[in-house]
Amino acid sequence: MSTRRDFLHLSAAATAAGALAGPALAQAPAQNPASGPGRPIPPAGGDALRLVTFRPDAGSAPRLGAVRADGRVVDLSRGAAQGFDPARMVSLIEAGPAALAAVRQAAASGDGPSVETVRLLAPIPAPTRNIYAVGWNYLEHFAEGQAVRGTNAEYPAHPVFFTKGVNTVNGPYDPIPYDPEVSTAIDWEVELAVIIGTAGRNIKEADAMGHVFGYSVINDTTARDMQIKLHGGQWFKGKSLDGYGPIGPWIVPASDLDPGDLHLITRVNGVVKQDASTKQMYFKVARIIAELSRGLTLVPGDIIATGTPPGIGNARKPPEFLKPGDVMETEIVGLGTLRNVIQAVPA
Amino acid sequence: MSTRRDFLHLSAAATAAGALAGPALAQAPAQNPASGPGRPIPPAGGDALRLVTFRPDAGSAPRLGAVRADGRVVDLSRGAAQGFDPARMVSLIEAGPAALAAVRQAAASGDGPSVETVRLLAPIPAPTRNIYAVGWNYLEHFAEGQAVRGTNAEYPAHPVFFTKGVNTVNGPYDPIPYDPEVSTAIDWEVELAVIIGTAGRNIKEADAMGHVFGYSVINDTTARDMQIKLHGGQWFKGKSLDGYGPIGPWIVPASDLDPGDLHLITRVNGVVKQDASTKQMYFKVARIIAELSRGLTLVPGDIIATGTPPGIGNARKPPEFLKPGDVMETEIVGLGTLRNVIQAVPA
Repeated sequence: MSTRRDFLHLSAAATAAGALAGPALAQAPAQNPASGPGRPIPPAGGDALRLVTFRPDAGSAPRLGAVRADGRVVDLSRGAAQGFDPARMVSLIEAGPAALAAVRQAAASGDGPSVETVRLLAPIPAPTRNIYAVGWNYLEHFAEGQAVRGTNAEYPAHPVFFTKGVNTVNGPYDPIPYDPEVSTAIDWEVELAVIIGTAGRNIKEADAMGHVFGYSVINDTTARDMQIKLHGGQWFKGKSLDGYGPIGPWIVPASDLDPGDLHLITRVNGVVKQDASTKQMYFKVARIIAELSRGLTLVPGDIIATGTPPGIGNARKPPEFLKPGDVMETEIVGLGTLRNVIQAVPA
Repeated sequence: MSTRRDFLHLSAAATAAGALAGPALAQAPAQNPASGPGRPIPPAGGDALRLVTFRPDAGSAPRLGAVRADGRVVDLSRGAAQGFDPARMVSLIEAGPAALAAVRQAAASGDGPSVETVRLLAPIPAPTRNIYAVGWNYLEHFAEGQAVRGTNAEYPAHPVFFTKGVNTVNGPYDPIPYDPEVSTAIDWEVELAVIIGTAGRNIKEADAMGHVFGYSVINDTTARDMQIKLHGGQWFKGKSLDGYGPIGPWIVPASDLDPGDLHLITRVNGVVKQDASTKQMYFKVARIIAELSRGLTLVPGDIIATGTPPGIGNARKPPEFLKPGDVMETEIVGLGTLRNVIQAVPA
């Protein structure tokens, strides 16, 4: 356990120093981050394993890597990594603990380019099913929405589940399309993403954490008008525009991170909009997995977005929405930060 | 066009004779249809191409086939079929019109075993994203539900979209699991399934039918209690139990079938429960595709369940739900029939 504690300690230190990253970030060209390699915020320190899917350069095929504490990316498609397809994160997840241990060893002894010179993709760029998502999982967020919508006065006794289409999956530093013909009410939602490691159905709450492979950061970016007004109260469509699910920058294995009290932050153009802790989650990770898996088989690589805390744009007075050129940063302290620019689509 | 007209005519004739199939079906062992090969209701006549995914026997890998009017299955993995992976329906769909023409030729000139001796799987056994589904798309069904739920008095101005998990995909003659610990309110919903052929985003309604590869039959089987009461009004979970989406028996290409006035029927233990026409659909196929694709890229092989007509169990007085041993038949006349037995899961 000391490893985890050290990691969290180091993460906190890195965060305290994180203010220094602000000006440097502000100098990064925001117009078209898709045209160059990823421009990650330097990784938090610590010994946690950070698993990525990346391209060494624009012409290369995606492959798996591990980002070391010093920011070097070890290419897991080279050398001794065995027992899984080194181009597919889900293959590594399916390969189990021995493969993960081998990867950890390779990450510790290997070397490679700086993470700032490669292009990071979503850790699982093409899931084989939609992203599972939980609604209203922070009471303060339920309350702020209640004031706007005027319905659903009672908090549900079970988690609210919906899905985000596979087409929403987006890289940690890639642009988010903005098309005013589709929606002008684009909103942010920082969330802890749970990555399932082992298959299961009717998973008991007491066993649920054993089915978790790891964690990542997701922004459940939402076309708020479509979600609430256009489609009869079902949220799927407003949650599922192309690219409206940036995720990453990496997956940290469950052994390396305690999800119980993680600091969640959304910043828009550097201004904090959401600022909360996962300890405020109403349904905890284990309960979510237990309820979701009732009669529904979860498989390795499944992604669950666990709900967003208060501070969304739609609940502000007046409401605030994202517009082209805005920089949305989505951080979970000690886990990672996404940075996505809102980008108008060509007319 | 005469080909289609002949096909529909022959289908109607086959349906008139369909009553003969009843007793024979009743003799089929209902306890464990999964243990033997599929026991399809004889295909409707006509020249329409019927594309299946099948196993010639229990030990064989799935492959593509075409079911001829006389019930023979031509194995498309043999012979001259080129330009696509003969094990994957989506590969054939992606291969385009030339590949489909070649398959049509192979089906006309080939031969093979009776469809009753092979095992039919879902035409697309493992979609790469959830099934898109439309709610409340027949006004009479919206009205019957309104009486039960007491909310949503106004009909939505746009289609109601939700998804069914990939885990719901089930074969046309396979059992549907029944677990009273999960739900005792299992309901039927016959629906026309649209299979997308060519990718598109922001598809214009006028162009939408050109993106359709073909049609199939789906039963949007629903755990009604979970859908309505348990999860805050979002339908995903109650629509997504394992196996709650039987589909097939085949895909008929769009060129061979007009979706405008198809006869939809659900029978439970031979008793008609739903009996309607696709002409009652409020949002037609083209409008559904146009609305769904706003800001959301559809890809080849995407499946859209277009909504169910009135007659669901939950709206009956008293409500009726499926129980172990019940035989649910889901038919679209001139397209095909699913036959699924409700089967208790081992305790």
